[in-house]
Amino acid sequence: MSNFFYPRQPEWTARGQALEPVLNHETILPATEVECVADPAAWQGVAVKPAASPDAAMADFFQFRTFRFDFGRHLVGRLELELEYTRCNDAPVRIVAKFAETPYELAADFDGCTAHLDHSWLQRETLIFDEAPEGTVRLPRRYAFRYLELKLGSPNYHTRLKAVRAVAETSAGTLLPAPANLTDAEKAIDRIAAATLRDCMQSVFEDGPKRDRRLWIGDLWMQAKVNARTFRNFELVERSLYLAAACCTQEGELPGSILLRGGAGRLANLLPTYALLLGPILLDHWQFYRRTEFCRELLPVALRQQELFRQWIDAEGVLHQPPKCWLFIDHDQQWLKPATAALGVYCFSLRATARLMQFLGAEGAENVLAEAEELSAKLRARLWDEAHGLMRTDGQENDFAWATQAWLILGEVPTPEQAEAMWNNARSNPEVRRPRSPYLWSVVMEAGWRIGHTDEVRQFIRDYWGGMVERGADTFWEVYLPDQPFFSSYGDILMNSTCHAWSCIPGDFLRRTE
Amino acid sequence: MSNFFYPRQPEWTARGQALEPVLNHETILPATEVECVADPAAWQGVAVKPAASPDAAMADFFQFRTFRFDFGRHLVGRLELELEYTRCNDAPVRIVAKFAETPYELAADFDGCTAHLDHSWLQRETLIFDEAPEGTVRLPRRYAFRYLELKLGSPNYHTRLKAVRAVAETSAGTLLPAPANLTDAEKAIDRIAAATLRDCMQSVFEDGPKRDRRLWIGDLWMQAKVNARTFRNFELVERSLYLAAACCTQEGELPGSILLRGGAGRLANLLPTYALLLGPILLDHWQFYRRTEFCRELLPVALRQQELFRQWIDAEGVLHQPPKCWLFIDHDQQWLKPATAALGVYCFSLRATARLMQFLGAEGAENVLAEAEELSAKLRARLWDEAHGLMRTDGQENDFAWATQAWLILGEVPTPEQAEAMWNNARSNPEVRRPRSPYLWSVVMEAGWRIGHTDEVRQFIRDYWGGMVERGADTFWEVYLPDQPFFSSYGDILMNSTCHAWSCIPGDFLRRTE
Repeated sequence: MSNFFYPRQPEWTARGQALEPVLNHETILPATEVECVADPAAWQGVAVKPAASPDAAMADFFQFRTFRFDFGRHLVGRLELELEYTRCNDAPVRIVAKFAETPYELAADFDGCTAHLDHSWLQRETLIFDEAPEGTVRLPRRYAFRYLELKLGSPNYHTRLKAVRAVAETSAGTLLPAPANLTDAEKAIDRIAAATLRDCMQSVFEDGPKRDRRLWIGDLWMQAKVNARTFRNFELVERSLYLAAACCTQEGELPGSILLRGGAGRLANLLPTYALLLGPILLDHWQFYRRTEFCRELLPVALRQQELFRQWIDAEGVLHQPPKCWLFIDHDQQWLKPATAALGVYCFSLRATARLMQFLGAEGAENVLAEAEELSAKLRARLWDEAHGLMRTDGQENDFAWATQAWLILGEVPTPEQAEAMWNNARSNPEVRRPRSPYLWSVVMEAGWRIGHTDEVRQFIRDYWGGMVERGADTFWEVYLPDQPFFSSYGDILMNSTCHAWSCIPGDFLRRTE
Repeated sequence: MSNFFYPRQPEWTARGQALEPVLNHETILPATEVECVADPAAWQGVAVKPAASPDAAMADFFQFRTFRFDFGRHLVGRLELELEYTRCNDAPVRIVAKFAETPYELAADFDGCTAHLDHSWLQRETLIFDEAPEGTVRLPRRYAFRYLELKLGSPNYHTRLKAVRAVAETSAGTLLPAPANLTDAEKAIDRIAAATLRDCMQSVFEDGPKRDRRLWIGDLWMQAKVNARTFRNFELVERSLYLAAACCTQEGELPGSILLRGGAGRLANLLPTYALLLGPILLDHWQFYRRTEFCRELLPVALRQQELFRQWIDAEGVLHQPPKCWLFIDHDQQWLKPATAALGVYCFSLRATARLMQFLGAEGAENVLAEAEELSAKLRARLWDEAHGLMRTDGQENDFAWATQAWLILGEVPTPEQAEAMWNNARSNPEVRRPRSPYLWSVVMEAGWRIGHTDEVRQFIRDYWGGMVERGADTFWEVYLPDQPFFSSYGDILMNSTCHAWSCIPGDFLRRTE
C-alpha cells in the first residue's frame, strides 16, 4: 500500500536535504573557573561563584583534579581541549566531561538521577586514550551547556590543561536589532529569547538542544514566528517542514514530531493538535516570506490533517479521542481534559488555512471557513457558561481552564463579546486552571494579543519571562513554575531542558509592530 | 650531543617496526550469563555462577538492564555487539561496558577504587550514540578480560541485545604440544602459563595486557624463554629488543621498560637490574635461534650496561646506589635492600655475556669472565655467613633473603658447596625472607634448577602456580601471596593484573628436557 502522499514524500525528503544549513561557528573560551555553593536564595538552591582566574586553572597539576568552568553564556556546540605532560605518559589518559546548563545541574550527581527518560540524555562523556593525546582533543558529540566540569587524573606525572574552548554551532545568522522602544527589562527578555531560538536552530528547528533534540510541529509554529523577526532563516523553516511532511503516515497523518536520523526525518509520534498547526504555520510563512509555490506544495498536507481530525467530531461538535494519538495541549495531562481545547485548535487551523487558501488563490476556502463557522456555533452553544462568563471544558464541567479559553479564542469560537469576557474572567478568577508550560502560556498570549490586550500580554511577558531572567536564565526554560523550582514531567529536574524552543515567543511579541 | 649508539638507534627503530607482527584473531562468544555471589570459600570472596542461558540473555528488554557475561577464558581483544529496537529510538543510546579479569573485579565498584595509579587503567567504557547504532558496534579500545558487564538503558522502547562477541588478539601462533610426561596438574599449569604468555604477546611482549601494557626487559627475559618452548615467535623477541635498544639514553643506558607510542618505543624508566639482563637474553636467543648477526648487533648494548653499572661498585665489591635509577629485585621495596642481589644480577650478566661472546667469536670474553670471577671472590669473602650457611645482604646484616641467595647463585658467586648449602638452608629456614612476586620466585627456581634441584623446582611449581590454578586462575597473576588475597602494590587489588608475563615461567621449566 502506497503512502497517501506518494510519490511526494521522497521528493520532500530530497528537497529538505538540499536545504541543509551550513552551521555558523564561534569559538568561546571559558569566562572563569567556578565552584558551586549551596545558596537558599538561588533558584534551585545552587549558585556558582568564581573560584580562580583562568590562568590559575591552566597551571599544571598532579594526581587528580576537577575543573569547573563557566563559559559565560549558554551555547550549543563542541568541546576542544589540549593537554601537556611533563614526561612520557605511562598510563591511559582519561577525560571525564560533564556539561551543565544550570548551576544545579553542575552541582548535581548524575548517578542519583531518578528520571524515567533515558539517562543517556545527561550530558557527560568519558574518553580514554591509550596513548596520551597530543594536539587538540575534540569530544565526539554536540552538547548544550554553559558550565563544564572536567575531571582529569595524572598520578605519575604533571599534566597541564593547556587549553579549553567551546565551538558554538547554530544555523542562526545575524540577529535583527530589537525595536528601540523596548525597556531595559524587555531588551533582556528579547535578547534571551533570541539566544534560545539561536541555540535551537541547528540542522532543523529543534525543541531542546540538550534533551529531546527533535522537530516538533507545535514548537516550530512558535520558532518560525520568532525567526521571522530575528534571524529570518526561512530556508530552515522550509527544510523542517519538508522533512516532517516526508514522514507522513500511510494515511497522510503529519507527525507531531520527527527525529533526524541518517540525514532524513523519521516519524516519532502522532499528535493531531500539532499536525493541525501546519495550516497556520504555512499562513505565517506566506505572510512573512510570500513563498506561494512552497505553500501550495504543502497545502494538501495541511488539509489532510483536518480531514483526518474531522472524523472524530460528532454531529454535536463533540470530539472523541482519536485512537493511538496524543492530544497534547499542556504539560498537565493528569488534570486537563484536552478535547475542547483541541477543538479550538481545529477551528484555528480551519480559519488560518482558509485564509492561506485565499492568499494562494486555492479553491475551497469558503467550505473550510463555513465548517469553522458551523462548528464554532455548536461549541458556543454547548460550552458557554453565562454565569462565569467562561467556556466549559468537556468532561470537566465544574472546572474552567485557560487552555480552553485561549484555544477557543484563537479558533474564533466565541463572539467578540464572549472572548473579551473570557479573557477578563480567566485573568481575574483564580479558580481557572492556569497553564503549566511556556507553550500554553504562549498560546494564551497569542489569544490575548488577537483580541487587543497587547499591553497585558507585554506585562505578562515582563512578569513570567522576566521571572526566569531574574532567576538567572541564559535561555528560556522548558518548564517554569515560579513556586516549584524542581517541577519536572520526567521524574527529575536534571532531565529538564533549560533552552527550549517553545519558550522563545517573547522574541515575536516584543518585536511586533502591527 | 649525540646519543651513545647514534646512528644505530634510528636504525633499530626501523628494524623493530619492520618486524611488526600480524595479529591472529579469534571470535569468542560468551559462554554464559552469570551473576556474582559472595562466597567466603572463593578467592577474594566472590564467585560467579550461571544466571541464565545465553538465549535468555538475548531476549528483548525494557527500561534498564545489566548483563554479565562469562567468556569462558581470559582473552585480550575487542568487543563487538549488535542492538535491535522495536521502534525508532528517540533518545541517545548509551552503552556502559565494564571488563573484568576476575570475579572480584566483576563484582567491585570501580568508583570506590583507592589505587594510587591512574584509574584510567580500570577497564570500563561509556559510549553514547546520538543515533541508535545499526549493525555492529565495536568498542574503541583493546581490553583484557574474561567477564563483561554491560549496562543498557531503554526506557521508551524495547531493545534486544542481538549479539555480543569478543575478538581475541595475539601475536602468538600455534602452541607446541606439552611434553607427554606431565601430570594432569602440571598440564593445567603449563596450559595456563602458555595462555598467560599468549595474552601478553601483542605488538611487543607486554608485561600485563590489562595494566601497564609495556615492555619490561626483566619480563622479556622470562617471556623469551617460555616463547622458545611454546610459540617460538622469535621475530617478536627481536622486534621487542630493537625497539628497546632504540630508546637507549644519551649515555647508552638501556631502559628498564619502554612504552609503545606512535608505533615506536619511548623510554619509561631506568632500571639497571633489568638492563643487565640484555646479555643473558641474547645468550638465550642465540642458543634457541642461532641468530648470530642479530646478537652481534646488540652485544655492544649489553656490554655498555655493564660498563655503566661497574662505576658504582667500589674496590671492596660494594655497590653504591646509582643515581636516578631503581634497583628492582622484588615487589618488596620497603623491606629488601636490593644492592647485594643486584651484584648477583651483575655477575650473572657478566658470565652469560662472556659465554655469548664465546659463541659469537667476539673478542674480550676472557676479560668479562675475569671480572665476574674477581667480583665473585670479593662477594664470597664479604657476605658468606658460615653459621647460617647463607649469604648476607648488605645493609641488612641480621636478616637473610631469598633474593640474595638466588641472584648470587645465578651469578655463580658462591662455591658449588656454598650454593648447595644456601639453597637448602634458605628452604629450611623460615626466617629467610621469601619472595613477594612471581618474578623473584622465578629467579629462585632458575637458581635451584641450575644447581640440580629440578625436582624441588617442579614441586614448587605444583605448589605455588598450582595454588593459583586451585584459586581459579585463567592466566597467572602479577601478585600471588596465598595468605593475602588482597595484596597490591598499588593501593587497591583492582589495579592488579591477573595476566602477567613474569608469572609465565612454568611454561619454560615444565617443558625443559635438558
